[in-house]
Amino acid sequence: MLRTHTCGELRLSNVDQQVTLAGWVQTVRDKGGVLWIDLRDRYGLVQLILEEGVSASNLFEAARTLGREYVVKATGKVVERKSKNPNIPTGDIEVRVTALDVLNPAKLPPFLIEDDTDGGDDLRMKYRYLDLRRNTVRRNLELRHKMAQQTRIYMDGQGFIEVETPVLIKSTPEGARDFVVPSRMNPGEFYALPQSPQTFKQLLMVSGFDRYYQIVKCFRDEDLRADRQPEFTQIDCEMSFIEQEDILQMFEGLVRHLFKTVKNIDLPEVPRMTYAEAMSLYGSDKPDTRFGMKFVELKGTFDTVDLTSGKNFGVFDSAELVVGICVPGGASYTRKQIDELTEWVKRPQIGAKGLIYVRYNEDRTLKSSVDKFYSEDDLMQWVARFNGEGETCQPGDLILIISGEAAKARKQLSELRLEMGSRLGLRKPDEFKALWVLDFPLLEYGEDEHRPGEGRWFAMHHPFTSPKPEDIPLLDTDPGAVRANAYDMVINGTEVGGGSIRIFQRELQARMFALLGFSPEEAKAQFGFLMDAFEFGAPPHGGIAFGFDRLCSIFGGADSIRDFIAFPKNNSGRDVMIDSPSVISQAQLDELKIKPVA
Amino acid sequence: MLRTHTCGELRLSNVDQQVTLAGWVQTVRDKGGVLWIDLRDRYGLVQLILEEGVSASNLFEAARTLGREYVVKATGKVVERKSKNPNIPTGDIEVRVTALDVLNPAKLPPFLIEDDTDGGDDLRMKYRYLDLRRNTVRRNLELRHKMAQQTRIYMDGQGFIEVETPVLIKSTPEGARDFVVPSRMNPGEFYALPQSPQTFKQLLMVSGFDRYYQIVKCFRDEDLRADRQPEFTQIDCEMSFIEQEDILQMFEGLVRHLFKTVKNIDLPEVPRMTYAEAMSLYGSDKPDTRFGMKFVELKGTFDTVDLTSGKNFGVFDSAELVVGICVPGGASYTRKQIDELTEWVKRPQIGAKGLIYVRYNEDRTLKSSVDKFYSEDDLMQWVARFNGEGETCQPGDLILIISGEAAKARKQLSELRLEMGSRLGLRKPDEFKALWVLDFPLLEYGEDEHRPGEGRWFAMHHPFTSPKPEDIPLLDTDPGAVRANAYDMVINGTEVGGGSIRIFQRELQARMFALLGFSPEEAKAQFGFLMDAFEFGAPPHGGIAFGFDRLCSIFGGADSIRDFIAFPKNNSGRDVMIDSPSVISQAQLDELKIKPVA
Repeated sequence: MLRTHTCGELRLSNVDQQVTLAGWVQTVRDKGGVLWIDLRDRYGLVQLILEEGVSASNLFEAARTLGREYVVKATGKVVERKSKNPNIPTGDIEVRVTALDVLNPAKLPPFLIEDDTDGGDDLRMKYRYLDLRRNTVRRNLELRHKMAQQTRIYMDGQGFIEVETPVLIKSTPEGARDFVVPSRMNPGEFYALPQSPQTFKQLLMVSGFDRYYQIVKCFRDEDLRADRQPEFTQIDCEMSFIEQEDILQMFEGLVRHLFKTVKNIDLPEVPRMTYAEAMSLYGSDKPDTRFGMKFVELKGTFDTVDLTSGKNFGVFDSAELVVGICVPGGASYTRKQIDELTEWVKRPQIGAKGLIYVRYNEDRTLKSSVDKFYSEDDLMQWVARFNGEGETCQPGDLILIISGEAAKARKQLSELRLEMGSRLGLRKPDEFKALWVLDFPLLEYGEDEHRPGEGRWFAMHHPFTSPKPEDIPLLDTDPGAVRANAYDMVINGTEVGGGSIRIFQRELQARMFALLGFSPEEAKAQFGFLMDAFEFGAPPHGGIAFGFDRLCSIFGGADSIRDFIAFPKNNSGRDVMIDSPSVISQAQLDELKIKPVA
Repeated sequence: MLRTHTCGELRLSNVDQQVTLAGWVQTVRDKGGVLWIDLRDRYGLVQLILEEGVSASNLFEAARTLGREYVVKATGKVVERKSKNPNIPTGDIEVRVTALDVLNPAKLPPFLIEDDTDGGDDLRMKYRYLDLRRNTVRRNLELRHKMAQQTRIYMDGQGFIEVETPVLIKSTPEGARDFVVPSRMNPGEFYALPQSPQTFKQLLMVSGFDRYYQIVKCFRDEDLRADRQPEFTQIDCEMSFIEQEDILQMFEGLVRHLFKTVKNIDLPEVPRMTYAEAMSLYGSDKPDTRFGMKFVELKGTFDTVDLTSGKNFGVFDSAELVVGICVPGGASYTRKQIDELTEWVKRPQIGAKGLIYVRYNEDRTLKSSVDKFYSEDDLMQWVARFNGEGETCQPGDLILIISGEAAKARKQLSELRLEMGSRLGLRKPDEFKALWVLDFPLLEYGEDEHRPGEGRWFAMHHPFTSPKPEDIPLLDTDPGAVRANAYDMVINGTEVGGGSIRIFQRELQARMFALLGFSPEEAKAQFGFLMDAFEFGAPPHGGIAFGFDRLCSIFGGADSIRDFIAFPKNNSGRDVMIDSPSVISQAQLDELKIKPVA
């Protein structure tokens, strides 16, 4: 070893010891013939000291020339500091240097290696190896390591076996776009990189593995939003001989174990909500439940009296849904602030036609943007409804209302709710609210990518998800009404995991493929092996997958997953540090028997 | 849960309990109105019993129709067995079934789900999910899981951080062939799948991560031998501020930890040998040290007297090397057996011109195939040399000698030595001998793949391996003599891990690339990011990578890695179960802007 101690471990108890340290020069201060050097490694920071006239003069002069980020080895004696630094664990001591080796000099880094760096995103990504030196980024990856460790401890403790599934698999038409890999040994043929180990984990259940998990890289060739990566990591799990309740218990247990061991937080029992409830109360299947502002419908659901009709307000009269939230303390919003909110919801990203407000003043008077149509009595009825469903709407609050086609209005109000939550500081990164969302629809209707203008059913989760047994008769009559045995775990408004009970009978699986527009031949070509497997003794099974990058970022209280990935790619799918992807040689193309076309 | 207990856990203490079990029907025996069903799951086997006239008759008749591998759920009472089965842990009890559900029927499997199956390789691979049901295969994967667990426990305990490095990286010209992935977002450009995370782990050292590891998938597009897979798993490790000795200690510790925790074997301190010694004593850089039969040179090394010359035996006189092994007890070999051995070494895979033997009879007489040229006195001198170097050659033994060009003769004799070890039962799968091989040459000379007929230097380990500091001057004068700070761990004649101390200075790295035939422009285009990184404060570092599939197979006492991989590919790189690789759609090709060419 080139060191006897790390830069983080020396204490008063080490005083008088001869030590050798190695690390990076963080700073050099040179004042009145005294040199202080802060030496840094992964474990901490320690102060070295040299004094003109006391230290050997060649040593002192050499130390004077050290630059930031030089890699050095220093030997010396640990002494107690005169002026202690309570901010660092080694702050009671310093090391009087008697020998110093520059192991490697360093050019001036293009940005400061400090918690708050002056480097912009592009520069930090190009020199990611320097960015990773910053405590904040390194701590994110240490958190990730701990999350993976604790996940494995929990899963191992529950009798799960980690099995590695293949990375070179087969392209399938359903779902997102695959990355493919040309096969040199089988010219004209391609492997695909897995979007998930779905079929393999189900086959492991057919094999009797009973409890499987894997922390595994998956791949999706999608146009990247700020918060997606072409390669991402899942905690992938599957169990046999279980029902939905067993999965919910098991993986609620995982999430609570992680909160306890990684954050020392006792997460309470995770509440549950159906998809239908989530959509009606939050307009979203992944509601942020750190705060209230639940949706209240003034018009829309069948069993509720319409409080908006008969007043000649055409906007509401023609709307399928009139729905609002009550913003606590919002009555203090000025007209100008409300106009700004109106503009906010009218932006193309949100797409609302407008925003109606009702200000419930402290003096219990009401003021709204629809005073022309609705009397104060009418409005008070609205307020009463906002006080009716576990929500409260008090004097001093502000009701914001959106109307129109139901699905759109819900989505728009959901965005507004989140925005108001953020503006009011109700979405605290260090507060954690988990939620199970259950009973997702099995199918959703959409445009057939191969027949523009024509529609077809798509699997909402994936084609292997089991319909609820009691809804199976609806498959023929009303596919859109079939509920799935599918569930998502949502934390702080982000879907961190999702799964389902799977189909395990060949006939039902074949029926599902047919519903999704596969011909029997296509189904056999793509998933014949799985349907065959179901005929050789497949147990009832189900599972879940957690987005590990996302889970880490939520635990770290951050918005972006990128800071929790050592070497992420940018929005064009490029690694700007290694400059990849890149052209390959003609010889490689020839061997693979492929040709780029313009 | 669809069960109260697993099939492996019921004991006498459970007698009289009402239990529900779920699993696969292993066998049904029907004799004299009694039905015995062996029910199997991952955890074990349990016997169910139904009796005609005692069990409800519809239940009894239903049970009678159960076939092999049916998935059933059975409820009943645990009772003590009349005739116990000491061979299984549940052999003291059986379950009197009172309710039975067929969860899924099963077609007759194409081969027996038993330890010794009747399924051939191809059939087992096509129905791998059934093959994985067999105890032997499942136990291999359980061993693998345990190996990974214990690896992480050791590495975590030593302060290593597991960091995930990217799978979509950049193609590099050095080393084996890359798998590539066309980029849709960057048409005409390709990612490559990593052959190892080599550069990334070095960058993590530049980042100050200090101790990194990862159990990680790697990829190599090579023509597959029986024991290679296009995707394989490494235990990949790197450390900073260390010297070779630190790496050897740390990872000898890992291997000993694995032997202790997984096999309950106390592996002694791992002996060390230089590459030069290994080649001269075993003709191999990965000697199997479970047995002796070390090489003894009769002619060849400079400081040894040539015992073969001056006798007009042209074969030896013209040979660069005359080298032999002494086979214990081999004097009992008949002439016919020796002839067969001679044919064995002359096969094209070995390629020897011939084999000379000296039989040292029990009565101390000598008989050889070169009696025409060498007297009994001459031969006795040979025997004496075989007794001189820690080896013994006793009456009753057989000396086998190969001669010719030194490198070839060593390789041929090495193969013969292993063959004789196998024939004599000296290569026991449950005996483990580990060895460090040190001081590999830095470079080896070979044909330039781009300029047929011309030679160039190749990195023996990889281009990032550091020459021994004392050998650096030889880089200019005698590159082939430069030794590397590189090391392999060998167990039972298989290289299970290898690594090196790395270059960490830009100038030396550039010099290395130049030696390997890179132009400065090529070096910059391919590895500029790494050489840049070396200028921003790179610490001395080094590491190692273990072949995890191989390590598991050795721990499992098996020859092939395939049985330790859940879903392996065949020798053509095909997964015959999912039928991959496969053609992809024209739409996919169009999006990727590539075209297969004939």
